[in-house]
Amino acid sequence: MAEINLNCPLPLPYEQIVMAHGGGGRLMQQLLDRLIQPVFDNPILAQKQDSAVITVNSAKLAFTTDSYVIKPLFFPGGDIGKLAVCGTLNDLAMSGAKPLYLSCSLIIEEGFPLADLKRILQSMQQSAQKAGVKIVTGDTKVVEQGKGDGLYINTAGIGIIESALAISPQKIHSGDSIIINGDIARHGIAIMLERESMQFDHHITSDCSDLSGIVHGLLDSGVQAHCMRDLTRGGLASVLLELASAADCHLEIDETAVPIHEAVSSACEILGFDPLYVANEGCFVLFVPEHQTYQALEILRLDPLGQQAAVIGKVIRPKPGGMVTVKTSFGTSRVLNLLSGEQLPRIC
Amino acid sequence: MAEINLNCPLPLPYEQIVMAHGGGGRLMQQLLDRLIQPVFDNPILAQKQDSAVITVNSAKLAFTTDSYVIKPLFFPGGDIGKLAVCGTLNDLAMSGAKPLYLSCSLIIEEGFPLADLKRILQSMQQSAQKAGVKIVTGDTKVVEQGKGDGLYINTAGIGIIESALAISPQKIHSGDSIIINGDIARHGIAIMLERESMQFDHHITSDCSDLSGIVHGLLDSGVQAHCMRDLTRGGLASVLLELASAADCHLEIDETAVPIHEAVSSACEILGFDPLYVANEGCFVLFVPEHQTYQALEILRLDPLGQQAAVIGKVIRPKPGGMVTVKTSFGTSRVLNLLSGEQLPRIC
Repeated sequence: MAEINLNCPLPLPYEQIVMAHGGGGRLMQQLLDRLIQPVFDNPILAQKQDSAVITVNSAKLAFTTDSYVIKPLFFPGGDIGKLAVCGTLNDLAMSGAKPLYLSCSLIIEEGFPLADLKRILQSMQQSAQKAGVKIVTGDTKVVEQGKGDGLYINTAGIGIIESALAISPQKIHSGDSIIINGDIARHGIAIMLERESMQFDHHITSDCSDLSGIVHGLLDSGVQAHCMRDLTRGGLASVLLELASAADCHLEIDETAVPIHEAVSSACEILGFDPLYVANEGCFVLFVPEHQTYQALEILRLDPLGQQAAVIGKVIRPKPGGMVTVKTSFGTSRVLNLLSGEQLPRIC
Repeated sequence: MAEINLNCPLPLPYEQIVMAHGGGGRLMQQLLDRLIQPVFDNPILAQKQDSAVITVNSAKLAFTTDSYVIKPLFFPGGDIGKLAVCGTLNDLAMSGAKPLYLSCSLIIEEGFPLADLKRILQSMQQSAQKAGVKIVTGDTKVVEQGKGDGLYINTAGIGIIESALAISPQKIHSGDSIIINGDIARHGIAIMLERESMQFDHHITSDCSDLSGIVHGLLDSGVQAHCMRDLTRGGLASVLLELASAADCHLEIDETAVPIHEAVSSACEILGFDPLYVANEGCFVLFVPEHQTYQALEILRLDPLGQQAAVIGKVIRPKPGGMVTVKTSFGTSRVLNLLSGEQLPRIC
């Protein structure tokens, strides 16, 4: 039995949890790297994948979990139930796994309307059925009024990896094309506008979707994906920074190639948000060998979730520690950094 | 694709969630039976086991989840971390599964001390290592101050079922002996005393433990367990009532045979609690064919968690709807009922 590592590699810069520890940026990364990973130290967790890849008997499985604490519970384009199912399906899909089973654990605040609970559970079931997965186990806890925020949902998921393809940040190579399936920042902006009761001419809805279908269309067609990652908290920028660091590569993105809806772009400008850091719930990036770029794009565009699929950049060269640069519309280049705080809390 | 059942079999008697919906008694049963089960309707969930039993390729797996919202986070005999690992290991063990992998999802309230978080994570890791399981995937969310209660933890678990034995309430037979591994009501009373800062002469500690070792000692020795269930919220009485109902049997318990520590018994008397309904976190009941009763007892007693193992009753006869009666120390008999409310909230 290994000894437990009781030391943090580096001290954490706070003594108490702040909101940004859950924001997907630098503070969350530090919490994971300096506290959680060293305590639970094991090679599977250390892979830092969206899903753990485990082998049971001869079956290669993906196993993942997420808690959903989004506010508000109902938002344009979805609700916490749809989000809790799709988010976990997406984490499984990003490992190349076919989702099979989900759990559903509820932490409900005293006083929560049963009609809302029913509506949310039905939304979970609809999303699960659409994806062909079953919710097979669960738990219900109730906390006193003032000790929750209506409803928190945890889903864990199990999927099976049938492809022999190893999909991981370590597979990212110089020359790989970086592809995105759709337009960014819709989830974060939809939540923000709903929360602040702001009106725009164009109704912006969250992109909250199950990506497992589009991902399997891609893999089944023979595209040799090196790495896939869905964009959630922290947006496109945070995911690219995390992958660049894990792969020790320099990634270059062409800002003008990143699809974004005009209304979302306007909302970001007005609110002062950089859309690259805004949350998504139905977008993923894909690293493919250069020669498969157009094959991948063609297949993605066959799916309703891939209509706007685009090559947004490439892997330039090996770079220890990783780096992400963005070519701007002005022809200049800027270096991306992890946000130390967060733009918007309770986004998922 | 099956249609979603949008109707409750019976209307729920409340329009909002009350604390007792999480208490393990009648209201929780109604929430599960009339709202959650009908929406997620599928045969695996309908088995109402502590773990879902699923088959992936040829591997028979157990899959379970629990959220832990206990208050206080640290208590005599354990903390929320130990509880979150042991509770999920126990749910796996009750299906006859050997636990393999756990997830850990944290919902942390802003302002929570990092030192406490570290202590709790270390406690999780210690319990996991002791059981030979790995925490392989996780998630971290932060909620604003006043929207949580320090820390909520969700763990999901995967185990493998190697035995050909089918363990389920439906296997319970007339004549089966009902065995318990240890003394009851320690967890609930330890939490209660800690919460109310009450002092007793004898220091009462929670029984919070991982039961997977003792269960596998039993199964590996050839005991043909018909059913096993760990006693948590709602205590021994609620578990027996649930099993009697699922098995359509009349169970008879001998109250004087149920092990209970003298100090716990005194505390229950003073506080007005019926120990049969008080929570446990290291106790389970076991239904075995009568001829294996003494073999099972002998094996249980070899384990530190089974020193007080005792036959507490038997399955009398088939009885549609189920029934549990208790022979009291006065020689009379009483019928057990599910509590409509709960004795103590936030116990696990």
